[in-house]
Amino acid sequence: MKLVRFESYGGEKLGILDDAGVKEITGDIFNPGRETGGIYNMEEIIFHPPVYPEKIVCVGFNYRAHMGELKEIATKKPTITLKARNSILAHEQAIILPKNSNQVEHEAELGIVIKKEGYRIIKPEEHILGYTIVNDVTARDIEKEMIQWSASKSFPTFCPVGPCIETDVDPSDLQITCKVNGELRQNAKTSLMIYKPEKLVSFVSQFMRLERGDLIATGTVPGVGPLVEGDVVEIEIEDISVLRNYVKLE
Amino acid sequence: MKLVRFESYGGEKLGILDDAGVKEITGDIFNPGRETGGIYNMEEIIFHPPVYPEKIVCVGFNYRAHMGELKEIATKKPTITLKARNSILAHEQAIILPKNSNQVEHEAELGIVIKKEGYRIIKPEEHILGYTIVNDVTARDIEKEMIQWSASKSFPTFCPVGPCIETDVDPSDLQITCKVNGELRQNAKTSLMIYKPEKLVSFVSQFMRLERGDLIATGTVPGVGPLVEGDVVEIEIEDISVLRNYVKLE
Repeated sequence: MKLVRFESYGGEKLGILDDAGVKEITGDIFNPGRETGGIYNMEEIIFHPPVYPEKIVCVGFNYRAHMGELKEIATKKPTITLKARNSILAHEQAIILPKNSNQVEHEAELGIVIKKEGYRIIKPEEHILGYTIVNDVTARDIEKEMIQWSASKSFPTFCPVGPCIETDVDPSDLQITCKVNGELRQNAKTSLMIYKPEKLVSFVSQFMRLERGDLIATGTVPGVGPLVEGDVVEIEIEDISVLRNYVKLE
Repeated sequence: MKLVRFESYGGEKLGILDDAGVKEITGDIFNPGRETGGIYNMEEIIFHPPVYPEKIVCVGFNYRAHMGELKEIATKKPTITLKARNSILAHEQAIILPKNSNQVEHEAELGIVIKKEGYRIIKPEEHILGYTIVNDVTARDIEKEMIQWSASKSFPTFCPVGPCIETDVDPSDLQITCKVNGELRQNAKTSLMIYKPEKLVSFVSQFMRLERGDLIATGTVPGVGPLVEGDVVEIEIEDISVLRNYVKLE
């Protein structure tokens, strides 16, 4: 089931995404209910982020090949940082390039949405609502200057997420691609992760309590690169969906 | 005015702290109202964190002397990281030492509470509700291993804050001390900050949108050191209050 939150003629609605459009349902993402009978075409709706996260956890160095791109700073195990929750952005909305950075980059990532809180989690499968697509947009120049990553990842609009949360997918071997203006920039499979998604939930929960609605960005695949004004960024994850965003100047 | 949130015989209440105890008032911390007539002794109340932050921003390397303690990793300007909001802990509650760290340390810091949201803030004084005390508890071994600081600072109970938010204090030259079991460990003045509190609000807002209820920990003063089971940590900031916490094993 591909859960989406959207707006059409006022008010936020919950729905299920399929090829034809969106079927409205009752409830919320944690307790999806029955169909209301409302059906919407893609053209009629404005997507909202499928979750407004309690916190956004970013995992670094979770693909061996991307560690090579950043080898001077890579740790032996995946590392963890936090991204401000109000950097969240919906599908089809614009990433705004901040005026105090000259090097903003895309990072295509599988996202995990948490449905049940926990600390030192032993059975991660019981804590995962589903999987989504995250563009962990990063101001690379600020990342290098600050050493700590949070500032470079927390600008408003730097966390495009969605369009949906897929609750019924095996995340162990999904193709992830990122295209900018149709040109392939990133291309890898989730099977190349050092810590697989379920392991990652247990790993992160060794350091912080995960809450219902937390979003974990599982690390980017090789091929990160710059975004400039006018770009269209599309991240596709097999069996989930395509997350599309436009790039504008501040 | 020293605003506190507390519990007494059920339910969270808002109050004003003075030498005699707490006077209950109506409203919330952003809109404090009139006195209800309720007066409580310290013995009758359980303190709550004075704010449940939207996000917790930690500033690093904001005192030159503490930069010396960490000189191999210090940046030229203050740096920024985020701490999980659910690491928050109230005055008089226990800091729990996690079993996966052998080196948990206290960090005495002045805290800024934001009352009005903003990005690229020009008049910071209009965005500050008041000042509080923060113990930015950090697992130093994990901080070093992970390089990124968020994990080492986000364990449950690692953000003692309070007991109050002082809305009427000039933060420019306040004495900060940290005592562990009565022994002085940290002692400095806020006048030694590289970026003063108002400047810091503008600085942080160059990278992320500050929200009402955000907490900024302004960086620790020299003398950070270990906490072990049974310790009592007291951080005092002149003209604000004393934040006291106990240390327990997981």
